[in-house]
Amino acid sequence: MTGAAPAPLDFYFDFGSPYGYFAGLRIDGLAAQHGRSVLWRPILLGPIMAITGSRPNMDIPMRGDYLRHDAHRIARLLGCPFAWPESTPLNSLVPSRAVWWLRESDPVLAHRLARALHHAHWGEGRDITGIDAVAAVAAPLGIAPDALAGGVAQPRVKDRLRAETEGAIARGVFGAPYIIADGEPFWGWDRLDMLDHWLARGGW
Amino acid sequence: MTGAAPAPLDFYFDFGSPYGYFAGLRIDGLAAQHGRSVLWRPILLGPIMAITGSRPNMDIPMRGDYLRHDAHRIARLLGCPFAWPESTPLNSLVPSRAVWWLRESDPVLAHRLARALHHAHWGEGRDITGIDAVAAVAAPLGIAPDALAGGVAQPRVKDRLRAETEGAIARGVFGAPYIIADGEPFWGWDRLDMLDHWLARGGW
Repeated sequence: MTGAAPAPLDFYFDFGSPYGYFAGLRIDGLAAQHGRSVLWRPILLGPIMAITGSRPNMDIPMRGDYLRHDAHRIARLLGCPFAWPESTPLNSLVPSRAVWWLRESDPVLAHRLARALHHAHWGEGRDITGIDAVAAVAAPLGIAPDALAGGVAQPRVKDRLRAETEGAIARGVFGAPYIIADGEPFWGWDRLDMLDHWLARGGW
Repeated sequence: MTGAAPAPLDFYFDFGSPYGYFAGLRIDGLAAQHGRSVLWRPILLGPIMAITGSRPNMDIPMRGDYLRHDAHRIARLLGCPFAWPESTPLNSLVPSRAVWWLRESDPVLAHRLARALHHAHWGEGRDITGIDAVAAVAAPLGIAPDALAGGVAQPRVKDRLRAETEGAIARGVFGAPYIIADGEPFWGWDRLDMLDHWLARGGW
């Protein structure tokens, strides 16, 4: 007799954050080492920043410079593809909706699309703002552009992204990336080691 | 023939941040493992937040709740004394001036005072706002209350703290704790592992 599978980790991220990209490179493998799966939940930081009274970190004096320097430093450390996109911060509405639309019919493919969008934007520096740009990333995965364009325009899909962001706020998500594991919150790429430790010990 | 001693690490902190307390518990030992010393530089986050358009993290919706939860979680992990002070955020003007005043005549004792102030405020939850409270922490270290009170009131000492904060801003310090090692910046307690790695590798 086996128990029920443990709940997946909730991985909240905004496609516009390089730290979400770096976290995305590690989160699945980290979780798997503890027999856990991950639910990738793209959200919009805009409505969250309206509540916290913040603005994009890359627009904040001094902090923006640090963020750029830090992102390149982390990429060198990880040895991962990285290219600062020409246009930041990203409006991540369309790529986020694309993932939520695809989740309805194919969660595995939706996960692959999320990773591909991260790679395109932060690994290759490509713009992923508009539907054409998202479709160009999705096509190699076998996702038809017309279906994608129709999907992200559906009110149901727009509502889903809005509800996800509101649900995140209700759980205290004030920034991203933000991981919730068994109710325990971890904010930021730099807390993945602590998350790993938490899962190994079952909390402390 | 030996080369010149490497420059000390600059450890910028505001007494009002629990992350500065946690970083202070580790920074000296971490640096020593790489043959480095640390210059503890108390500064005021207030003027910095005026530039970045921020306010104390503990006053920000959701983030404040996370910070409290996180600080207790870190304290349990480290097994260190911790008590959330009754009155936060701290106005750290007087304790910061006290450290800079003492540095003029006795850098080693100034370092001990900084650690004692951290411990009193974050380890025991004591208020360290006023001169009497600071004197109570300083007295067991052999620092005479009258000398201390006279010292922190000197224009030269007030100017020093102001210059330190302005100097930090000029170096890009947008938050605290913030460590600069050989020109490389590390923001936050959660970057001490990266700092350790950086010192071990000599950068990357």
